[in-house]
Amino acid sequence: MSERFVVVGGDAAGMSAAAKARREDPEREVVVLERGEWVSYGACGIPYYVRGRIPDVDDLVVTEPEKLVGKYGIDLRRHHEAVAVDPADRTVTVDAADGRYDLEYADLLLATGGSGADLDVPGEDLDGVFTIRSLEEGRALREYLQPGESHHPGAELPLGGEFQDHLHGAVERVAVVGANKIGLELVAAFDARGLDVHLVDDGEHVFESGPLTLPSFGAAAAGVVEEHLRERGVTLHLDAPVERFAGEDGRVTAIESARGRVPADAVLVDEGVQPNVELAADAGIDLGPTGAVAVDDYGRTSADGVYAAGDCAEKHHLVLDRPVHLPLGLAANRGGRAVGTTVTGTPTRQGPVVGTVTMKVFDLEVASSGVLNPEEARSAGFDPVVETVSTISRAHYYPGWSRITVEMVADRETGRLLGAGLVGKEGCAHRVNAVATALHAGMTVGEVADLDLGYSPPFGPGWDPLLTAAKALSGDLD
Amino acid sequence: MSERFVVVGGDAAGMSAAAKARREDPEREVVVLERGEWVSYGACGIPYYVRGRIPDVDDLVVTEPEKLVGKYGIDLRRHHEAVAVDPADRTVTVDAADGRYDLEYADLLLATGGSGADLDVPGEDLDGVFTIRSLEEGRALREYLQPGESHHPGAELPLGGEFQDHLHGAVERVAVVGANKIGLELVAAFDARGLDVHLVDDGEHVFESGPLTLPSFGAAAAGVVEEHLRERGVTLHLDAPVERFAGEDGRVTAIESARGRVPADAVLVDEGVQPNVELAADAGIDLGPTGAVAVDDYGRTSADGVYAAGDCAEKHHLVLDRPVHLPLGLAANRGGRAVGTTVTGTPTRQGPVVGTVTMKVFDLEVASSGVLNPEEARSAGFDPVVETVSTISRAHYYPGWSRITVEMVADRETGRLLGAGLVGKEGCAHRVNAVATALHAGMTVGEVADLDLGYSPPFGPGWDPLLTAAKALSGDLD
Repeated sequence: MSERFVVVGGDAAGMSAAAKARREDPEREVVVLERGEWVSYGACGIPYYVRGRIPDVDDLVVTEPEKLVGKYGIDLRRHHEAVAVDPADRTVTVDAADGRYDLEYADLLLATGGSGADLDVPGEDLDGVFTIRSLEEGRALREYLQPGESHHPGAELPLGGEFQDHLHGAVERVAVVGANKIGLELVAAFDARGLDVHLVDDGEHVFESGPLTLPSFGAAAAGVVEEHLRERGVTLHLDAPVERFAGEDGRVTAIESARGRVPADAVLVDEGVQPNVELAADAGIDLGPTGAVAVDDYGRTSADGVYAAGDCAEKHHLVLDRPVHLPLGLAANRGGRAVGTTVTGTPTRQGPVVGTVTMKVFDLEVASSGVLNPEEARSAGFDPVVETVSTISRAHYYPGWSRITVEMVADRETGRLLGAGLVGKEGCAHRVNAVATALHAGMTVGEVADLDLGYSPPFGPGWDPLLTAAKALSGDLD
Repeated sequence: MSERFVVVGGDAAGMSAAAKARREDPEREVVVLERGEWVSYGACGIPYYVRGRIPDVDDLVVTEPEKLVGKYGIDLRRHHEAVAVDPADRTVTVDAADGRYDLEYADLLLATGGSGADLDVPGEDLDGVFTIRSLEEGRALREYLQPGESHHPGAELPLGGEFQDHLHGAVERVAVVGANKIGLELVAAFDARGLDVHLVDDGEHVFESGPLTLPSFGAAAAGVVEEHLRERGVTLHLDAPVERFAGEDGRVTAIESARGRVPADAVLVDEGVQPNVELAADAGIDLGPTGAVAVDDYGRTSADGVYAAGDCAEKHHLVLDRPVHLPLGLAANRGGRAVGTTVTGTPTRQGPVVGTVTMKVFDLEVASSGVLNPEEARSAGFDPVVETVSTISRAHYYPGWSRITVEMVADRETGRLLGAGLVGKEGCAHRVNAVATALHAGMTVGEVADLDLGYSPPFGPGWDPLLTAAKALSGDLD
């Protein structure tokens, strides 16, 4: 039997697994099949690439292909697409430029990632309507905004030719559909490019569209973010489900929403991430309740010798105690790394998630960890109590302080911390890590209120904002 | 018997206790005896006051005296000094401008704070040699640097008259003795005032002078801080124990150290904080092994009805599992608050400390929590393993990243996290709170390595610096 470890997908989970397997067992044959051009890239950087802060798409690459091949000894096959898996025969069928071939494996990792979910409304196929999840899509969007800007001689650009046929007028007004993490990061990116930005969402407030979703940044953060967006000149169209996209000559010109028409030269749709599960599903591998590939703690799927990790796979949520689909970079890196270790002989758990997320929206840091949505908490059997406090980011006498708002949720009966969100101009993105740690430890809010956290005038008030929130919430539970 | 709750000392611990007792029991008589002018002030702000960023010493006050009296109904007696306690009779003897009197108490809190420790070398009583712990000292120092600058008509300044007799030349060169937290904050303050700053310490590196001290920021941070201090034009005199101060006309002119003479127009000595225990000791109340007042979890001293909290009292260190003297603001606030609750009928523990400290040294954030000093870890029965990693503060493709250095310590046998320190230009001060939380939870470094921390390109690399350190340290233990 072949000892080959085959990895499908060359981004965070796939490349982490491949590199780790080679480090653990330098004799092991490791093949990575990547259907596109880029491997080991930082998808989270795409909004910053679109903004123009990162000049070249190659800058997003974490580890150069040459290094993966040379230093790590990975058999990296770009523009090779896995089109079928036969778990009984332990083979994967691959399409490449020079034909189709079968590849045997001893262990297989499906790290096929996710795609931007569609809205499923008419007109979504018009030019100028984008979802964004891959570097190809990021580059196509930037090219659409400013033709020629993304030109990069070193890489094949599948969409380049297409856009050269559309020497359209400059984009001046852009609409983002979906007031979630990536959508809001792109709002800021578009604004930085001098565009007139409109945000369209079916929720009454940002962060609440769609079904129960992870992550939620909480109701308090929503209010602060909306105010900040308006201050920065973004036009908000809330409670406005998109009904169709209108266009001329094949190009989008407007969004038709339940609350009226929003003209737009380009549209970015962020309706969340859909796991790429076709390959697994076609092979008869079980999907979980979220629609992503079901895996155990070790990333093992229902098929012997087949693992899944990253945005295509479920993760176990420690607070909800159920599988979730949480397409975030750290979990992908960690899941891949665990599988790379497991397949080389040391069974390694990837560990549960608590759903820690941080983002920057213009001048705001927005961060949350755990469960902030009361409905979601109730679905997991908790009786959530929510407390919101507003405090300051530095000692009151230290110049330059700004507001920090903390929303914290606990279970009424046990006092267990369920989650917390923070929003403010400073001191939120890293502070949330203490929340994540407390969630991992299963602490009560009383225990959180007793934590010996740091204090220094430039960095916070005498009682850290998290302690103030935990004290208040603890008082509510008495 | 009187139900009076008497508090000696009107800063963080004392005022927290007084205010909390009145909130819990609005009928309770609460008397606060403060020997000075100011109450409820932020001593941690003194370095920023000396710098000049905070114009008026009154700005450091957290709660106005009028509010303490009016809103909280506290019987606040400023310029009343407790000079003796008789635990058998439950009376405290008070000196005030209009004479001496005895005050009965049901419960007594000693919140007498700490003082800047002396060096005990000749010449320390020269004008221009300062320690700094009280607002009076801070104001006297600022007045010495720039006569007239600290003038404030509303408050009595005990030292004001004295300095009016010394219309000396402007201070141009200043020396700080002691490369610890307050000393380094003052180095930056003096530099910001345009002074030529010299740092003199008997350790070979910053943070290591004196006996085993809490907090230590670690050896890695020491190197980074020294380099940064030199870049900013501070002259370092390390491994240079001070032998005496030299002066002319009663004013300091130079430090004589084992490595030579350091001319200085003013000197700030930061040799740590000495607990003010005279009142307790004279009353026969037990002191602990650190020299501070011994207390149990509730702040109770060896004398019935007498509590101690804040910088004069010991705290229980969770990692070392022994009493420590850790004069920090949060523990003082918390200790006072717990005593205020306890004396009104709800016994409340103040909780252990893990010694979390953060500071700003010029552009650097320096933070630590737990035990970083291997010798100190060994004294508590651990076999410390230390790992230091250097990583970056943002994603590699996100402009503006800088270095973050993390030093992490674990026990070899159990893998238990013992402490960690971080240093860098951003992302350190709040990140340390996750370390503090993990220490409270008694996590192993393996568990820390598995934490689901936040990730976003503006705020960190894909693997958080703490995870990178924990992974490396975890590998060392295998």
